[in-house]
Amino acid sequence: MFKRILVPFDGSKGGEHALLKAVELATLCGAEINVLTVYRHHSMLEASFSMVRAADPGSMDDAMRSHAREVAEHAKKLAIDAGAPTARAFVKAGQPARTIVRFATEHDCDLIVLGARGMGSVEGYLLGSVSHKVTGLAHMPVLVV
Amino acid sequence: MFKRILVPFDGSKGGEHALLKAVELATLCGAEINVLTVYRHHSMLEASFSMVRAADPGSMDDAMRSHAREVAEHAKKLAIDAGAPTARAFVKAGQPARTIVRFATEHDCDLIVLGARGMGSVEGYLLGSVSHKVTGLAHMPVLVV
Repeated sequence: MFKRILVPFDGSKGGEHALLKAVELATLCGAEINVLTVYRHHSMLEASFSMVRAADPGSMDDAMRSHAREVAEHAKKLAIDAGAPTARAFVKAGQPARTIVRFATEHDCDLIVLGARGMGSVEGYLLGSVSHKVTGLAHMPVLVV
Repeated sequence: MFKRILVPFDGSKGGEHALLKAVELATLCGAEINVLTVYRHHSMLEASFSMVRAADPGSMDDAMRSHAREVAEHAKKLAIDAGAPTARAFVKAGQPARTIVRFATEHDCDLIVLGARGMGSVEGYLLGSVSHKVTGLAHMPVLVV
């Protein structure tokens, strides 16, 4: 019933749990897993408000992108080890929720599987978690694990 | 991968869409569908703030319960017509999100499938929709369709 499942992955334990659930579902449906790790461009970091300018902000972006790539590749490996029929790893810079939803739309993903959500407290969940924002923005089904 | 799927159903078009998605998933997993329609007890209605007391508040509850029962049975029929292996209909009074999550916990549901969510606007979604609250409260996966 699903053909391409997007799993935003930030390297957290909750993200890993969601990834394994997504793999189960992908195996059942014969779907492709797209792992996406979103990192923030240096201009989005708090340090960018500092009066002390980084000598080379570009190298910060490089370092963040390269770490994000490691995280995404780790998730891809986890997915394949868990039996995913196909898994691909992607990396994007930007505001997490909007970047995730834009990616899902552009790549024709028909499901987004997310971890990281409130643990029994609406209040915690209300505080702008990524899963909450994605669920509000996405036009495709979202599974919060 | 899922054994018992809870589909809270309010009779809306979005709810029907979610129900059909749940049936697809239930068919794939051989899961049982539990439809739940939640209605509000008369004491939770705005009219209960009125100085004019209803002569018989119990009959309001009866009417609401009986309407909720019709809605739940309609959903059960839809689910069976769509090919659900097993479908059962339930009715409960209470605050929607908390009642849904309590039911899911007590009935060992391992997935909640919900319609009715923000249509591309985080702002709309932030305004306390049921699906948003359920996602924040539930300890089992929640699929927002």
